[in-house]
Amino acid sequence: MNLLERLLNINLIVFDLDGVLTNGKVLLNSDGAWLRQMDIKDGFAIQFAIKSGIEIAVVSGSYSDQVEERLKKLGVEVFVQGATRKSDHLLSILEKLSLKKDNLLYMGDDIPDLDAFGVSGVKACPADAVSEIKDASDFISLKNGGDGCVREIIEKVMRVQGKWDINKFNLQSV
Amino acid sequence: MNLLERLLNINLIVFDLDGVLTNGKVLLNSDGAWLRQMDIKDGFAIQFAIKSGIEIAVVSGSYSDQVEERLKKLGVEVFVQGATRKSDHLLSILEKLSLKKDNLLYMGDDIPDLDAFGVSGVKACPADAVSEIKDASDFISLKNGGDGCVREIIEKVMRVQGKWDINKFNLQSV
Amino acid sequence: MNLLERLLNINLIVFDLDGVLTNGKVLLNSDGAWLRQMDIKDGFAIQFAIKSGIEIAVVSGSYSDQVEERLKKLGVEVFVQGATRKSDHLLSILEKLSLKKDNLLYMGDDIPDLDAFGVSGVKACPADAVSEIKDASDFISLKNGGDGCVREIIEKVMRVQGKWDINKFNLQSV
Amino acid sequence: MNLLERLLNINLIVFDLDGVLTNGKVLLNSDGAWLRQMDIKDGFAIQFAIKSGIEIAVVSGSYSDQVEERLKKLGVEVFVQGATRKSDHLLSILEKLSLKKDNLLYMGDDIPDLDAFGVSGVKACPADAVSEIKDASDFISLKNGGDGCVREIIEKVMRVQGKWDINKFNLQSV
Repeated sequence: MNLLERLLNINLIVFDLDGVLTNGKVLLNSDGAWLRQMDIKDGFAIQFAIKSGIEIAVVSGSYSDQVEERLKKLGVEVFVQGATRKSDHLLSILEKLSLKKDNLLYMGDDIPDLDAFGVSGVKACPADAVSEIKDASDFISLKNGGDGCVREIIEKVMRVQGKWDINKFNLQSV
Repeated sequence: MNLLERLLNINLIVFDLDGVLTNGKVLLNSDGAWLRQMDIKDGFAIQFAIKSGIEIAVVSGSYSDQVEERLKKLGVEVFVQGATRKSDHLLSILEKLSLKKDNLLYMGDDIPDLDAFGVSGVKACPADAVSEIKDASDFISLKNGGDGCVREIIEKVMRVQGKWDINKFNLQSV
Repeated sequence: MNLLERLLNINLIVFDLDGVLTNGKVLLNSDGAWLRQMDIKDGFAIQFAIKSGIEIAVVSGSYSDQVEERLKKLGVEVFVQGATRKSDHLLSILEKLSLKKDNLLYMGDDIPDLDAFGVSGVKACPADAVSEIKDASDFISLKNGGDGCVREIIEKVMRVQGKWDINKFNLQSV
Repeated sequence: MNLLERLLNINLIVFDLDGVLTNGKVLLNSDGAWLRQMDIKDGFAIQFAIKSGIEIAVVSGSYSDQVEERLKKLGVEVFVQGATRKSDHLLSILEKLSLKKDNLLYMGDDIPDLDAFGVSGVKACPADAVSEIKDASDFISLKNGGDGCVREIIEKVMRVQGKWDINKFNLQSV
């Protein structure tokens, strides 16, 4: 099957946090916290995907209460923090949702994501992912991490599945 | 009428917030707030437009006390937060000012702005707007959101109307 | 006289703040403050110029305690905040230092700086200055505001005057 | 010996902070602190280098508790702050580790780093280093400060030494 055919099977899209939902930078705050930057257009697509019945989850090796709060507002129910072997968490999510590997698209940007790729039907990455990840990806976004790669892959899946319908949009940008 | 002729009728310019007055990113602060970035050169143009008699308003689906405070300093009196259907708010602003659709230019960057475009005489967007918005725009700025698109469209309207007069500038950059 | 000859007379370099010493953006903090971004390499050049006997001052239409603190650390003694007519402040600085117009280089990026240009021997601007300022400038930096334009013009003046001597550097980057 | 042969001898990599581990910018916070931005992919490489037996240290002319905390989390034990003559600190680190000049690679971006270059076997810099540093460097990264130059040089050293082995990665991105 070619990529477009495989995208028809996707019911679950899982994102890495740093370098995918963000630009891969952290701003070191004076109170010890790390400030991350997220993209409003990405957020719109996440909201719309969820309302259209596509499951969205985030699995990160790091921790952030602030990201958790924003993801909840967008409707994301599963945000795994402090993950060491991401594949374990993906398999657990697949089982809980009664989905198979072919139903899962995972987007990551760095070497710890290779393990996640192993259990994912479609492997995707931002334009500024490291070479090891690009080499292993089915789809390389034209957009960088934190700057639209999330929007692009969600839109691509939804267009292939006939779900990206402007007349159904009834969402705010948050 | 061509675009330049239509710009002669503009008395009211309304901007979306995220992705137009900002770069469409939010920085997640440790106290739960979202930090947005605004452009000083945009601010100069907003001040000058208001002093020249052009009405400026901002309509956003999101919320920000900090943006409200800055907009007030620049002289912007109408800042609608938490808007769901932006067209409703635009129609209400038009009525309050006794203006018509042809007097309104709206600049937005994402799909929730299509609804606002429906009641606007001239539709504009930043260079990095989504494709659905670009396709529906009369004017696509050369500048990105938060990086001069606001200045560019204000200056364009004022030049066409003969109001961009360097000798009348008596403003600070704030 | 050509530009290089005129740079031989420069004893005082005055910078605008927003868009020259910064990228012209402000980040709106949840406590109401505006966060500005400054460049470490610019800071190195400012320190070195002052130690080499060139006067450095900053004249801004805005206010910032944080910028004042950083400028003091770099050795800048004159930082005018809340300036309306910048030319008045420049003339007062020139008088205090017993210098003439030909001794003053001013770098600005937006229309309020045109007034300052009127009393400055050499007029300079960053690469991303507005068109009115570029048209009136003797020197347009290859670098943008907040990203090296300050370093570039200081280095240029000091090289022409034989003061950019690597062996004399004994400074930290702060 | 050519550069690749010289990289075989490297056991210690020392980085400057501002402009190398960061983009050379500081964000001036309202509480007087300076916020710096660091790159997650750089952090991954630092962790992996240390676990592979390569010593990593940071020597800066500036101060930052927040950077110190992050470097500790990544496993960096030596972070010299407030350094005036960096070469003194490098010689002291070399002595403590019983290493020689040929074992040391130093990456810096501005004139105070020239002194450090004097005691370093291999001299490296980011793509946006100043001209004096580029002219004196053995290796100029394709990446800018704070945007991957640290990852690139660590990966290059480890590949030459046969240590960049994907199957050995068992690290989180932090």
